[in-house]
Amino acid sequence: MPKLYVIGIGPGDPELLTLKAKRILEEVDFLFFPKGREEGVSLARSIVEAKVDLSKKNIEELHFPMAKKGEWEHGPELREKWQIAANKILYRLNDGMDVAFLTLGDPGLYSTFFYLIPFLEQSSSNVEIEIVPGISSINVAFSKLKIPIVLGDESFAVLPATYAKDIANVIKQFSTVVLMKVNKVFNECRELMREIKDVDTYYVARLGMDGETVIEDLDLVGEEDLTYFSMLIIKRRKDA
Amino acid sequence: MPKLYVIGIGPGDPELLTLKAKRILEEVDFLFFPKGREEGVSLARSIVEAKVDLSKKNIEELHFPMAKKGEWEHGPELREKWQIAANKILYRLNDGMDVAFLTLGDPGLYSTFFYLIPFLEQSSSNVEIEIVPGISSINVAFSKLKIPIVLGDESFAVLPATYAKDIANVIKQFSTVVLMKVNKVFNECRELMREIKDVDTYYVARLGMDGETVIEDLDLVGEEDLTYFSMLIIKRRKDA
Repeated sequence: MPKLYVIGIGPGDPELLTLKAKRILEEVDFLFFPKGREEGVSLARSIVEAKVDLSKKNIEELHFPMAKKGEWEHGPELREKWQIAANKILYRLNDGMDVAFLTLGDPGLYSTFFYLIPFLEQSSSNVEIEIVPGISSINVAFSKLKIPIVLGDESFAVLPATYAKDIANVIKQFSTVVLMKVNKVFNECRELMREIKDVDTYYVARLGMDGETVIEDLDLVGEEDLTYFSMLIIKRRKDA
Repeated sequence: MPKLYVIGIGPGDPELLTLKAKRILEEVDFLFFPKGREEGVSLARSIVEAKVDLSKKNIEELHFPMAKKGEWEHGPELREKWQIAANKILYRLNDGMDVAFLTLGDPGLYSTFFYLIPFLEQSSSNVEIEIVPGISSINVAFSKLKIPIVLGDESFAVLPATYAKDIANVIKQFSTVVLMKVNKVFNECRELMREIKDVDTYYVARLGMDGETVIEDLDLVGEEDLTYFSMLIIKRRKDA
């Protein structure tokens, strides 16, 4: 049975592809690049192209907008886009081709692929799916900072920027908090952080891409540093 | 200046090594395998050996016990073990060799390496450290289950098993909760989960190793399934 591989390609550095991702990308004929976010396709393509010869591959971009909630909460317009994307994948699978769907970072972390699952599963043909994990931007951020996400009996929480107002409360409960895509609420978060004591904070953006930014003093973050691929990291001090 | 590479090698499947990890492991002369946990060294060695020729490498096992807390909270006995391990690494670096320190999964997630940092930094010689992120067992677990860690505006929390009693409270705040190394408190967690409605639960252990276990119905988890490399995943239902 033809197979759909959902492949995490890491957040930017082509060397962070896994051996498995590289092997599968070399083997499959048809690659789908989801186009939803700014620069997403060109970035994903440049990551893969650096390590895999794409000259003989069939490549298709799947256009669908970002979603903020679960598929089930979305209106007919978005659902129609996902149906079209799913149909394009099913068409190739029904043709007997193995195909790969690429996602930046790790497929499990905020990738658009999972919105397609209900539409793929509605199909009369059985679809075999394999998900290949990738390095996430969170792992890369902490490795660049040379600090652990968690050690020993510590705990951590990851939240999208919509939870910015809750960070003071969350950092009381967790050793480490990561706020994703923080650019639009960064100034508000910086204000909140001024009230919170005994924490270390880091602003990180565009890891492994042009314009990579790692700033430890939030006061040094300027408007020009606030980009889509950004995160705020908050760590309780060890002695706190 | 000689460099210390701290390399995440993934949780078990050798194909989940990154291209970067493989390249560096091929380049460096000296590899340190930390020996702290059950099977840790033999597992790490088998992962690397499957993809890198180790026949001409210098290999040393660093013995140090697991730590439950930050380095600063530990007694002199543990501190002495870390000092010895750090000295062994420093000895090779001072000899002009690049060395690699291997960690299962991702170095940022509960790996023992970060306990060594204060001891490495005490040294009079400057130590250049590069951390190479790896695929974590969390990413692998969700990819095997074919479910997202988080989608859209969801949030997630990761806690060690010592927080088992808090899970009912944490799952109220987060879409997804992962309880690590849950084997010793599994029965207690299973009892707690019976009281919590509108969640899906999964028990996962030994991913990519012999005896890999993925069980969706917690009642089917037997004593023999409860092993060190285990986690309990709790997800709020979409319609809850």
